[in-house]
Amino acid sequence: MLLHRIEEVREKIKQWKKEGLSVGLVPTMGALHAGHLSLIKKAKETCDKVVVSDFVNPIQFGPSEDFDKYPRTLDADVNLCENEGVDIVFAPSANEMYGEGQRLSNDILTYVCPPFFYVNTLCGKSRTGHFDGVCTVVLKLFNIVQPEYAFFGQKDAQQVIIIKKMVKDLNVPIQIIQCPIVREDTGLALSSRNKYLSEDGKKDALVLSKILNNIKSCYKNGITDVDALKETAYNFLTDKHDMEYLEIVDKNTLENKTKADNNSIALIACRVEKVRLIDNIYLE
Amino acid sequence: MLLHRIEEVREKIKQWKKEGLSVGLVPTMGALHAGHLSLIKKAKETCDKVVVSDFVNPIQFGPSEDFDKYPRTLDADVNLCENEGVDIVFAPSANEMYGEGQRLSNDILTYVCPPFFYVNTLCGKSRTGHFDGVCTVVLKLFNIVQPEYAFFGQKDAQQVIIIKKMVKDLNVPIQIIQCPIVREDTGLALSSRNKYLSEDGKKDALVLSKILNNIKSCYKNGITDVDALKETAYNFLTDKHDMEYLEIVDKNTLENKTKADNNSIALIACRVEKVRLIDNIYLE
Repeated sequence: MLLHRIEEVREKIKQWKKEGLSVGLVPTMGALHAGHLSLIKKAKETCDKVVVSDFVNPIQFGPSEDFDKYPRTLDADVNLCENEGVDIVFAPSANEMYGEGQRLSNDILTYVCPPFFYVNTLCGKSRTGHFDGVCTVVLKLFNIVQPEYAFFGQKDAQQVIIIKKMVKDLNVPIQIIQCPIVREDTGLALSSRNKYLSEDGKKDALVLSKILNNIKSCYKNGITDVDALKETAYNFLTDKHDMEYLEIVDKNTLENKTKADNNSIALIACRVEKVRLIDNIYLE
Repeated sequence: MLLHRIEEVREKIKQWKKEGLSVGLVPTMGALHAGHLSLIKKAKETCDKVVVSDFVNPIQFGPSEDFDKYPRTLDADVNLCENEGVDIVFAPSANEMYGEGQRLSNDILTYVCPPFFYVNTLCGKSRTGHFDGVCTVVLKLFNIVQPEYAFFGQKDAQQVIIIKKMVKDLNVPIQIIQCPIVREDTGLALSSRNKYLSEDGKKDALVLSKILNNIKSCYKNGITDVDALKETAYNFLTDKHDMEYLEIVDKNTLENKTKADNNSIALIACRVEKVRLIDNIYLE
């Protein structure tokens, strides 16, 4: 069932709660791919009822980012969700969600702001205000749907860590379920932004997972020095790659390490054909 | 029943919800007086079960403010609450609420940040970060207690407006009930901080309500020019009064006005014997 209005969703949820049914939420920005479907399948296994939100959230995009051209495929999304047995696809307008609220503006909108320490690193460094926008929309969706469980992909590793931190800090009564990255057979992590890439670009994009796999394999072979592990990346890079960051940090706190250990995660962000791609891998 | 742990509260609430009972929350910082009791009475009228939180919230105090000496009277509070038929007094430790979280620090804690426009005025001007701390603790309490209704006093007018805005912006599924200011027979608005005042100080403090009543009476007599209305205050002030602000703004948006109307509210903050006192009045 496709719903556009907050009140319609609340009505439906209220009915389910009365019947004692558990609810799972899969927050998405649409352009659904097999990565999203893995979240939906997990939600179906875990909960009686599943809500997928399908909303390109304006307040998490910076002024120079791809909000306007971000892929929007609502009809296809709804079909995919119906095939998976999703109970509600919630696709609100920006006006329904924010009224007069503006892009990345804290002048007139209440924001949820994750800790500086979690934000001022990795993706947050180049995307000022991005995680404020993410946490704000996610908390709004949590309050609208009031699910017992919410499902997020490990692909956006910093995002999951920040959302778990928000849930803990604000005592949000929801359990966060993190699902593994889904990859093409080539190793490329699925992303809605892969649609921007040419066939050549997709080949160049394989470097992200290759670098990460190589770091993991070096770690397994006994190299723990973070600088040494990071240096192994240079063998893979060409002039097709515009590297933004490559970091090895604590998988729960994002703290920088000098020595990698079994709690470490390696994360990479790199532009290929001007498309910003991210990927990550647990070293354990 | 006095509870100190979040999990104990959640357990109790869960049981009530199963029985279909409605829950009201009265968030306080303790040091309960007749103003708080009026909120509790209203909650008892409105809801099946009433929770009073009693917590001096460290993150809403600035470094030079009165956190350490803020009055703490838990035993008396619990007695008062029992007399009113309160079902739970929730008095957590700072550690239970924040763990490693620090005072007014957004380095390691997720914050709820009300809009700049609502914060950078009135009390927010002199109390940097205060309303971030208020919204954060209130949202935490909302998430812990999950009440249908929450009760706030009109005494802290800017606070109520900001919390209503938060509830709207973040789609919090709770109805905010605002209750009128309770005053001594002299006109002095009840406040936990009145305890700091000497007998002479309490007399000097009457000037706040006198100024506000006079403004209202001038407005009723046809004066609408905000500057003219504010000027009437000077007749009341002596060297015992250290005025912080006197403003006439929109009662819903806090917007400044040049002409007062029936949607206006007059607000005052003034120090007497170094004690910061606030008061307000609707002009209608």
